[in-house]
Amino acid sequence: MSFRYLSPGPQRVFKDRFTTKVDEKKQWFEQGRTGEIGLLGLPYSKSSISVSQASEAPQSIRRALGFYTTYSLEKDHDFTDVTMLDFGDAGVHPTDLERTTKQLQESVKEMLDAEACSRYILLGGDHGVSFPSISAFHERMGRVGVLQWDAHHDVRNTKDGGRTNGTPFRSLLESGALKGEDLVQIGIRDYSNAKEYGDYCARQGVTVYTMADVEAGDITSIVKKEIQRLKQQVDVIYLSVDMDVVDQAFAPGCPAIGPGGLTSRELLLSVQAASCDPIVKAMDIVEVDPSKDFRDMTSRLAAHVMMRYMFQ
Amino acid sequence: MSFRYLSPGPQRVFKDRFTTKVDEKKQWFEQGRTGEIGLLGLPYSKSSISVSQASEAPQSIRRALGFYTTYSLEKDHDFTDVTMLDFGDAGVHPTDLERTTKQLQESVKEMLDAEACSRYILLGGDHGVSFPSISAFHERMGRVGVLQWDAHHDVRNTKDGGRTNGTPFRSLLESGALKGEDLVQIGIRDYSNAKEYGDYCARQGVTVYTMADVEAGDITSIVKKEIQRLKQQVDVIYLSVDMDVVDQAFAPGCPAIGPGGLTSRELLLSVQAASCDPIVKAMDIVEVDPSKDFRDMTSRLAAHVMMRYMFQ
Amino acid sequence: MSFRYLSPGPQRVFKDRFTTKVDEKKQWFEQGRTGEIGLLGLPYSKSSISVSQASEAPQSIRRALGFYTTYSLEKDHDFTDVTMLDFGDAGVHPTDLERTTKQLQESVKEMLDAEACSRYILLGGDHGVSFPSISAFHERMGRVGVLQWDAHHDVRNTKDGGRTNGTPFRSLLESGALKGEDLVQIGIRDYSNAKEYGDYCARQGVTVYTMADVEAGDITSIVKKEIQRLKQQVDVIYLSVDMDVVDQAFAPGCPAIGPGGLTSRELLLSVQAASCDPIVKAMDIVEVDPSKDFRDMTSRLAAHVMMRYMFQ
Amino acid sequence: MSFRYLSPGPQRVFKDRFTTKVDEKKQWFEQGRTGEIGLLGLPYSKSSISVSQASEAPQSIRRALGFYTTYSLEKDHDFTDVTMLDFGDAGVHPTDLERTTKQLQESVKEMLDAEACSRYILLGGDHGVSFPSISAFHERMGRVGVLQWDAHHDVRNTKDGGRTNGTPFRSLLESGALKGEDLVQIGIRDYSNAKEYGDYCARQGVTVYTMADVEAGDITSIVKKEIQRLKQQVDVIYLSVDMDVVDQAFAPGCPAIGPGGLTSRELLLSVQAASCDPIVKAMDIVEVDPSKDFRDMTSRLAAHVMMRYMFQ
Amino acid sequence: MSFRYLSPGPQRVFKDRFTTKVDEKKQWFEQGRTGEIGLLGLPYSKSSISVSQASEAPQSIRRALGFYTTYSLEKDHDFTDVTMLDFGDAGVHPTDLERTTKQLQESVKEMLDAEACSRYILLGGDHGVSFPSISAFHERMGRVGVLQWDAHHDVRNTKDGGRTNGTPFRSLLESGALKGEDLVQIGIRDYSNAKEYGDYCARQGVTVYTMADVEAGDITSIVKKEIQRLKQQVDVIYLSVDMDVVDQAFAPGCPAIGPGGLTSRELLLSVQAASCDPIVKAMDIVEVDPSKDFRDMTSRLAAHVMMRYMFQ
Amino acid sequence: MSFRYLSPGPQRVFKDRFTTKVDEKKQWFEQGRTGEIGLLGLPYSKSSISVSQASEAPQSIRRALGFYTTYSLEKDHDFTDVTMLDFGDAGVHPTDLERTTKQLQESVKEMLDAEACSRYILLGGDHGVSFPSISAFHERMGRVGVLQWDAHHDVRNTKDGGRTNGTPFRSLLESGALKGEDLVQIGIRDYSNAKEYGDYCARQGVTVYTMADVEAGDITSIVKKEIQRLKQQVDVIYLSVDMDVVDQAFAPGCPAIGPGGLTSRELLLSVQAASCDPIVKAMDIVEVDPSKDFRDMTSRLAAHVMMRYMFQ
Repeated sequence: MSFRYLSPGPQRVFKDRFTTKVDEKKQWFEQGRTGEIGLLGLPYSKSSISVSQASEAPQSIRRALGFYTTYSLEKDHDFTDVTMLDFGDAGVHPTDLERTTKQLQESVKEMLDAEACSRYILLGGDHGVSFPSISAFHERMGRVGVLQWDAHHDVRNTKDGGRTNGTPFRSLLESGALKGEDLVQIGIRDYSNAKEYGDYCARQGVTVYTMADVEAGDITSIVKKEIQRLKQQVDVIYLSVDMDVVDQAFAPGCPAIGPGGLTSRELLLSVQAASCDPIVKAMDIVEVDPSKDFRDMTSRLAAHVMMRYMFQ
Repeated sequence: MSFRYLSPGPQRVFKDRFTTKVDEKKQWFEQGRTGEIGLLGLPYSKSSISVSQASEAPQSIRRALGFYTTYSLEKDHDFTDVTMLDFGDAGVHPTDLERTTKQLQESVKEMLDAEACSRYILLGGDHGVSFPSISAFHERMGRVGVLQWDAHHDVRNTKDGGRTNGTPFRSLLESGALKGEDLVQIGIRDYSNAKEYGDYCARQGVTVYTMADVEAGDITSIVKKEIQRLKQQVDVIYLSVDMDVVDQAFAPGCPAIGPGGLTSRELLLSVQAASCDPIVKAMDIVEVDPSKDFRDMTSRLAAHVMMRYMFQ
Repeated sequence: MSFRYLSPGPQRVFKDRFTTKVDEKKQWFEQGRTGEIGLLGLPYSKSSISVSQASEAPQSIRRALGFYTTYSLEKDHDFTDVTMLDFGDAGVHPTDLERTTKQLQESVKEMLDAEACSRYILLGGDHGVSFPSISAFHERMGRVGVLQWDAHHDVRNTKDGGRTNGTPFRSLLESGALKGEDLVQIGIRDYSNAKEYGDYCARQGVTVYTMADVEAGDITSIVKKEIQRLKQQVDVIYLSVDMDVVDQAFAPGCPAIGPGGLTSRELLLSVQAASCDPIVKAMDIVEVDPSKDFRDMTSRLAAHVMMRYMFQ
Repeated sequence: MSFRYLSPGPQRVFKDRFTTKVDEKKQWFEQGRTGEIGLLGLPYSKSSISVSQASEAPQSIRRALGFYTTYSLEKDHDFTDVTMLDFGDAGVHPTDLERTTKQLQESVKEMLDAEACSRYILLGGDHGVSFPSISAFHERMGRVGVLQWDAHHDVRNTKDGGRTNGTPFRSLLESGALKGEDLVQIGIRDYSNAKEYGDYCARQGVTVYTMADVEAGDITSIVKKEIQRLKQQVDVIYLSVDMDVVDQAFAPGCPAIGPGGLTSRELLLSVQAASCDPIVKAMDIVEVDPSKDFRDMTSRLAAHVMMRYMFQ
Repeated sequence: MSFRYLSPGPQRVFKDRFTTKVDEKKQWFEQGRTGEIGLLGLPYSKSSISVSQASEAPQSIRRALGFYTTYSLEKDHDFTDVTMLDFGDAGVHPTDLERTTKQLQESVKEMLDAEACSRYILLGGDHGVSFPSISAFHERMGRVGVLQWDAHHDVRNTKDGGRTNGTPFRSLLESGALKGEDLVQIGIRDYSNAKEYGDYCARQGVTVYTMADVEAGDITSIVKKEIQRLKQQVDVIYLSVDMDVVDQAFAPGCPAIGPGGLTSRELLLSVQAASCDPIVKAMDIVEVDPSKDFRDMTSRLAAHVMMRYMFQ
Repeated sequence: MSFRYLSPGPQRVFKDRFTTKVDEKKQWFEQGRTGEIGLLGLPYSKSSISVSQASEAPQSIRRALGFYTTYSLEKDHDFTDVTMLDFGDAGVHPTDLERTTKQLQESVKEMLDAEACSRYILLGGDHGVSFPSISAFHERMGRVGVLQWDAHHDVRNTKDGGRTNGTPFRSLLESGALKGEDLVQIGIRDYSNAKEYGDYCARQGVTVYTMADVEAGDITSIVKKEIQRLKQQVDVIYLSVDMDVVDQAFAPGCPAIGPGGLTSRELLLSVQAASCDPIVKAMDIVEVDPSKDFRDMTSRLAAHVMMRYMFQ
């Protein structure tokens, strides 16, 4: 007996025969499968200083992929040839946060060890996940350069609260997984950081672009210039996109929203400009809290950032 | 190579080794599988008189099953022995509504023809789905008795707008799939219906209990009495639960909310009282619009109604 | 030329030929028209102690009438014979609040002077409107008895803030428009009033029923008993329904919400019990703030209260 | 007897003697009346692929007119001389969607046949309404040129779901009501369309401007250039404004919101630039769903677009 | 120089000279001060299984005290003689959760050691705080009896996630701080617990009342009976009020909301009944998440519970 | 006895030893204290034409200061040397609005008379507060120049509604506290004002920049030019920032939101440009209604505006 009308399984959605949704090009990883992009969720935000539900973002951003198609008219190409392998979400522990950090790092390494993909996307989680994630890339791929879109330096001291979402780049610089000269911060905002941490970045040789730099120049040129510089000295470049670099009007679902940031178009264009160089092998997107958002706007923007990275 | 930390697949949730969530007892139907309860979504609400997103309820109610466990302390039993076979959601068409109605009826019949379950749950959708659903049960199981929890008679004329969510019982009575003497309406509310339709029910021999009847008596006794009466005359009893029978305070996500209805406890107790007789073979739950709800309260209540029906 | 498809005018809604919506029985007052119920909006809440948008309630409650029909199955009667004459909303001034109070009182008197209706409904606004409204009834109809559903005494002193929504019954008792022995308060809640005002009511001979009295007895009996008592001594009875007498779960849109109040069913039944005596000539409904509500629940309840009063 | 204080009728609002609100210049059409602008609501969104309440937009946009005045300081003119005749909302059917499409087309033709106005505004509804609306203009006015502000091509095949909000321009091109060379699409967004439909537009000779074109140039110049081109070949130009061309930050109430679109200023300036040529006789505004909006922002923007079109 | 109009300091609120708000009777503890009630916030919810912002509840419940007065008409007493000493909020650590638990316990002990009050209120936080809090009472006051209002047993195993908000009574029973025979659970709900934990409670000699017990009897009598039993065997009684014992309609802001629970009136009356015995020395209120609430309803209910406990 | 763990007092927040939050530099004024910036709340919005809760903004903007630090990377300076003296909120009366206006003016004068600060910030309230505030500056400091960021002229006649939030600059010009040639309006929007009031401004010699002027030029240059002009003729310059000058996407919490306004970056840059001249001694920020906002976005923007003014 076979069904004519029934089709047991997940929710049915309207299907246009000519349209390929981005999530149709995503498969769960299985041994032997390969794909262009490896995707891993790092659903971890309990160590945020304020209460954060950014741990829900891997799910909401994946859902938002269903709003998009694979076709770029501007590039005149249908990226149905780019497939994603989804490694699922790394496991976390309800109360042992140090153990969770270790599990995240091991999870990223296991994904890299599978050697199934050529580029990677990591979905946070709060910005704390960039510490284990970049550490794993460093362990497996050598010297890592990082372009960090962010309103904040994220180099707080770890004495006052342990490893939080304010400390990932401090931890990376201090552990040696990242050199100051290999870190570029874009979109840093006034009155959102402490002087000690601005000075710390300067002492470490971090390159910092403020919003005034963005206003004065052209963010796309900044990004291209820094990619060219970094590729002289590193083995791989990792983009770390803290969505709070964007003005609160365009990304209302970040925990630490504020005015005076990037527009959505500035973010999309600059990520696209960075991603076209093959040395860029990884990107994380962090600090999206779906519970604070309006109509998943911030997850939709995050998913659009993914396309700008994936489809070159 | 196998993973120690990774486990590609859907979202991970916290697992307590001793707890069985209700949705863990649900499987997608496959040929050869059997189970106590057959579940089918009827995600259809475009024919609602007002714009309704009740078509999203099958998904939200299924998700709400994850909030509940299989264990009843009051009955001192863990219903891990009751399994659900999920036949998925019936297919609908974006613009051809008559075709959709036929597909819904065929879908229910296909589920019954599979003979894989002994009892069934249908998740609307708006109340319009009860017409194809009960018609299908009539075709396959003979004379059907219906207990309808509802603030409204739902016997509007079909001339003014075709088959809408206000007409299912009119359509059933006129098509012969249901006799007036086999229909019991509970919770009918003043100032929410037209006199012509109250009179129509009387002419058809429908048994009607108003909210004043509920206030005066005991809804559990009413339900038990009517089950006893119906089982003398019908082959099978079908419960049709329009969630707007409940006061708006307890079911804020129904399209047609209003005050003066049942409490959540009255609904749960009366459905439980009805469901303990084995002649009750089916239940539908309709008129939950997740887009209008607060914190999925109405889907949570609907899921709790499912447990009261399933776990006897 | 005449149109076959077009029909310029306000929004079209679905019309079932057998259904009479309550708002279809409402007409704007014009000279010469008469009707059972006179309706007047008193959109005044700037003198509320907290910021209140209760001034929007006359519009939202009128709209909510469109959710209801004229038919009571419990009374087996279709009240299409009860018509409402709508006198619109009284004018208010943006910054001169004393002038507004006078205008409200004159507006009510003008409506009464029209002698077009036999009973009246006044829609606040905050509870401050009951002072000019009851004063007007006193001027035109003689000795007034008042049944007040309320969590609060509303007899604050006027020295600390002038005439606010906390002072109407103080103003009425002091102006002589109302005698203490003619005032009955139902549903007064603990920890929501000052001792001085409880004592003031006692000194004035006001009859007070607390929530404990409601729990202990039967609110319908209380109401009937007090109507019988009052009608021995007054010329007319006026019901004043402050919606915050209702538990916050059932009336989430009142400015001063709180737990431990009446259920929606207790309110509807008690208003219905009070309204069946012909000496009851007026009712106001106050303290509904649509901007704070969820899905107009509180306006829906208020409109349902209107039906329980109108349809005897 | 006449009233001094009462004035039965719709809600009173504060009136400044020197201010003319835009909605004060709007009258319901009656035989014999003429006006500059004819206004018609097309409250139709049941054929949207996703559930849409865009059918409520004609009401919410009309209400938003009350937020605006007739005065432009930039043009140094008070447009109290421009009057609107409102033909109300076209009738729709709850369940017969094909019949509704025909009724919409007939309604637009009836409005044009009245010959009471020189320019027209149509308020959707979803984008599906542009098919009957532009068809009617084609029937009555000859060759029509269309400027379409949109993130999407809206030329889906009609086999997969019938005529939906994704198909209007396909239907127009195939029915011959519109030639490809007469259609200009502005603001088309990457990853929001299928390749087949981009190719279809190319084959049909449609002129397409992407967001990259907008970034690179000046949207006002694009619009002016295309108006000049079209006026060589068509009898009348029709502007079709799908509000989802705007970035989600500025139009949060569109069903298909997304990042990377126009700013509100780009939309207002480009519509103003297009509207100054007298060959532009009509504009529709579609895809505003008030139930999804925040503080009616999207309806406010739509109403502002109306002013930029009306007041030349 | 002194000010006539200015008064630098926190927000001014309207003051009625005869009204005492409950929060006016609250002072920060200082050495030497004494008061009837000691108040301490335990703002800790990072160990909740789901993300919880219950850590904000101590602030929102304190603010809600400002909605209430000290006067009970039912008891005919103005409780201005009952003062609260507020010990502030215990300190927590962003990432070291075990350390936080210890700090909470030490904080409660320090408050008790101050010997400044005769009764205590602890404001969670999630239910996890009851473990350190009751442990502290046990250390300082001897054998503790506990009345727990709760939908859940909260005796999960600690192996699957460490000490979470699902484990406090397991931890207490295993550490010896509480004996099973001294624990009474009221309002336990079907399909919300695991069989293993129901059995565990039975094995430990815990007394359990389900919602069916509440329906069948009278919750006030249940509470009084159990207080009488416990006082034979313990030194002090501690009330632990998990607000999710209440139906979701009345407490919409609990993390784990659901239908079929207590009404607000049942909760208030039963806490009042329990609190009148002088052996009751402490109460905690937990699982209120202000970020999920509607209009602070759940915090308002929590504050009302405080009054029922404080004012005897 | 001293506490090791307890610290009675207001809510504890996470403290990073190197970070100075802006609100840490704020103290309540006391006799003898001096500081750079004097801060005063003017919590007054009852005279708004529409119901407004802008009276809550002084509290919400103060709270938003806690989101910001004192450090500017762009200026390479940590403004820990700039202290704020907070004079609290001026007292208002619930029903006597004229009296309130006088109290506001006296309050500002008392603050100035204290001679404790060199520059001032006034937090409204609605725009009506600028009348008493600027009047006070005029009385104490002589000829005042005003830069007004606003979508509206705010020079309505006072006959139609008394002194409302639409009249402050009319009142100032007519009372002689401000000369037309000393008033500059920036960001005035089309279709948001009446011709009479545009003409009135022209007759009074007010300098007006529309949004078209902003689009055409550079708002920073406009501001600098006008500061230079004004300082030739006035004793002191006062900035009056009506937040509705900003596009609704960036300031969703203003009562009179609309599209086509400034971006957040345009506002921040232009206020910063204005504030660097020492003749600028005061700024007010008005028309933020926290009850209408999304995630306090508009209060966050207002607080950021404060920093741009304070930190030079």
